[in-house]
Amino acid sequence: MLRPRTAPDHRKRYNAVAGRSIERVAALSDGVFAVAITLLVLDLHAPALELVHSEADLWHGLLALAPRLLVYVMSFMTLGIFWVGQQTQHNHTARSDRDLSWLHLAFLLAVTLMPFSTTLMAEFIRFRLAVVVYWLNILLLGVLLWFSWRYARHAGLVSGEADTEIACGIERRIIVAQSLYAFGALLCIVDTYLSLGFIALVQLNYVFAPRFGPLARI
Amino acid sequence: MLRPRTAPDHRKRYNAVAGRSIERVAALSDGVFAVAITLLVLDLHAPALELVHSEADLWHGLLALAPRLLVYVMSFMTLGIFWVGQQTQHNHTARSDRDLSWLHLAFLLAVTLMPFSTTLMAEFIRFRLAVVVYWLNILLLGVLLWFSWRYARHAGLVSGEADTEIACGIERRIIVAQSLYAFGALLCIVDTYLSLGFIALVQLNYVFAPRFGPLARI
Amino acid sequence: MLRPRTAPDHRKRYNAVAGRSIERVAALSDGVFAVAITLLVLDLHAPALELVHSEADLWHGLLALAPRLLVYVMSFMTLGIFWVGQQTQHNHTARSDRDLSWLHLAFLLAVTLMPFSTTLMAEFIRFRLAVVVYWLNILLLGVLLWFSWRYARHAGLVSGEADTEIACGIERRIIVAQSLYAFGALLCIVDTYLSLGFIALVQLNYVFAPRFGPLARI
Amino acid sequence: MLRPRTAPDHRKRYNAVAGRSIERVAALSDGVFAVAITLLVLDLHAPALELVHSEADLWHGLLALAPRLLVYVMSFMTLGIFWVGQQTQHNHTARSDRDLSWLHLAFLLAVTLMPFSTTLMAEFIRFRLAVVVYWLNILLLGVLLWFSWRYARHAGLVSGEADTEIACGIERRIIVAQSLYAFGALLCIVDTYLSLGFIALVQLNYVFAPRFGPLARI
Repeated sequence: MLRPRTAPDHRKRYNAVAGRSIERVAALSDGVFAVAITLLVLDLHAPALELVHSEADLWHGLLALAPRLLVYVMSFMTLGIFWVGQQTQHNHTARSDRDLSWLHLAFLLAVTLMPFSTTLMAEFIRFRLAVVVYWLNILLLGVLLWFSWRYARHAGLVSGEADTEIACGIERRIIVAQSLYAFGALLCIVDTYLSLGFIALVQLNYVFAPRFGPLARI
Repeated sequence: MLRPRTAPDHRKRYNAVAGRSIERVAALSDGVFAVAITLLVLDLHAPALELVHSEADLWHGLLALAPRLLVYVMSFMTLGIFWVGQQTQHNHTARSDRDLSWLHLAFLLAVTLMPFSTTLMAEFIRFRLAVVVYWLNILLLGVLLWFSWRYARHAGLVSGEADTEIACGIERRIIVAQSLYAFGALLCIVDTYLSLGFIALVQLNYVFAPRFGPLARI
Repeated sequence: MLRPRTAPDHRKRYNAVAGRSIERVAALSDGVFAVAITLLVLDLHAPALELVHSEADLWHGLLALAPRLLVYVMSFMTLGIFWVGQQTQHNHTARSDRDLSWLHLAFLLAVTLMPFSTTLMAEFIRFRLAVVVYWLNILLLGVLLWFSWRYARHAGLVSGEADTEIACGIERRIIVAQSLYAFGALLCIVDTYLSLGFIALVQLNYVFAPRFGPLARI
Repeated sequence: MLRPRTAPDHRKRYNAVAGRSIERVAALSDGVFAVAITLLVLDLHAPALELVHSEADLWHGLLALAPRLLVYVMSFMTLGIFWVGQQTQHNHTARSDRDLSWLHLAFLLAVTLMPFSTTLMAEFIRFRLAVVVYWLNILLLGVLLWFSWRYARHAGLVSGEADTEIACGIERRIIVAQSLYAFGALLCIVDTYLSLGFIALVQLNYVFAPRFGPLARI
């Protein structure tokens, strides 16, 4: 009864008209990034009122927040990098379809997990597992972004202006970045702080995009 | 005094100009979905610091989060499915009016309740009532989406491109999906885990939209 | 030094180019409404795990949430009514200027206070002061919305299509609604539940906008 | 292996196409401002239920919230001022590039820190350090906004309509405002309340933009 003869056709047709607006995907993405970015800051709690009796106490209370602030800035950078990356894809995508919408939804799922991974690493920085979870989150973001671009190209959803060079550039970018993140994660075998430091340097490189010296070649 | 003779006309005219922007309904919807999706993740708490003394402790702490993560992914899928469904309607709606705006607002009310229903089910998975509440939330989403489309068609707000076939396809889609969800909810008479598993499979089917075999006919 | 001779002119010119996008005001408003609407639901906590040992316990736990759910739905209606009202103004506004932007920002301030007023009323429904605070919040929303429309008309920011009839209709609408809310708030002298009930009926009237009988004249 | 010979070119090309949509920057900004504005209100907690036995108790409980409400309104004003300022820049920017996107992302980072700085000042108003942190947050907002405008002008991203006068007006505005904020922060040497009061007056001046008397020259 739930499978009338004509259903497959109707279904095909429904799927052909579902989720076609790349603008809506972009709007939802901006919303999710905005909330995820701001939720991260909820981890920064003001020092407890009863423990602060002098300026010096407050100063020490704020200093104690420094590691969390650093992790916060790092995660902000991560999300910023992926927001710019996703936006670049959107700008070169003419329209969406339901599969591409779902690939971007899966990407947003990985974005919403970032506050959790971040908190975990901030609290358990000395444990390798925390670094691995953080890296897995970054890997998931990269894989889904890479896959959504591959799919968009394959399904003919990319806008005409985006020539092969740009298209390949977007893919290479993701692969190089993920290789560096993976190497950084591997460093946790030596030391978790080293691992975190290396990942932070990679991120700084992508944020500031230096245009000279050896870094410009990465 | 509050009911001057000419009021009905003015009122009619006010209602005729109120809430006419489908773009604003879409923008508010994207915002609500973005917040609801991200709030769901607040249920994922990092393990308590004082309970973790080794990598193994952290591993067990994370494993204990697995059921919550599963429920989170499930609810993300639910909201994703309804976001795609609502977006498909919006794409075929030329303009809104105040009644359609309110139908979509009611739909968004059901969306904001999803984090609550999800948390409830995650904590009380062994109780049938938790499954029923979760299903009622899904039912409410379906009924409001179906009704808003019926209303849009009836009030002549659907854009010209959407032919009868597409219009019927959108309705049939909702009815088939809701029948499957209802069957899944009924399974809680046997076992609540079975119920949850079946609903998850239905959702996976709508997310991945397989194009072959018997599933393609659903 | 901070007041160079030419400053007044520059300032005038700066103010003449600041905050001119009504689309940005609309986008910020959708974001604030989306967050405020979804934050309201954070007050709905699942029953405590250790208090629930049977389906009946869960049922009673959920029943205990009913008053909060009612208040939640009421506040959702309030925010929905003002969202539709603000949107109607935006649709008839050709552009913004910095003063209109600030009037709408003040309106959004009142919107962000709604979750607080709602929680207050949900917890202290038997105290008149809680009803008064809730009503003051609604009054503030109404006054700011009325004033922003007056200003937009006065400053020539209203788009050409909006004739005098529509313009007056928008103002009358606010005044009639606020009179009814004020009457409802006054009822708290008799009983706070009566007050809440009357305000809820007024809101239901604006949500469903009945087109027949005496209510159609309000 | 990660640095193929042709990489620099590809990288340049990638950077040339990345992050070019000023609309997306605007959309993300509206989202972040919307969340940050609404999060601020989470600091307003209703009085504890068990401490309130009469209308007078509730009244005193609400009065005790007054300082927090004031700080909330102040921070809302701060964010509103910077939102209007950023929007004015966006309105005169034709397109973005990846560097401008990152400057605005850094600006949004400072926006997300505002709820923290605000809470800190609300709780530790008698400590100079709390005022200094609050001021540093405002300074960071100003510096990044000033720098992003300088960069947009330098990189030729400003739209044609914005003549030199407007462009200089936007910069002067930021410098004058920041000078006043810095003076206000300095007053904390005398008294932290004086400091806060002066900053509040500066903000009120920018919100209401009086058009007469000596204030019109600031």
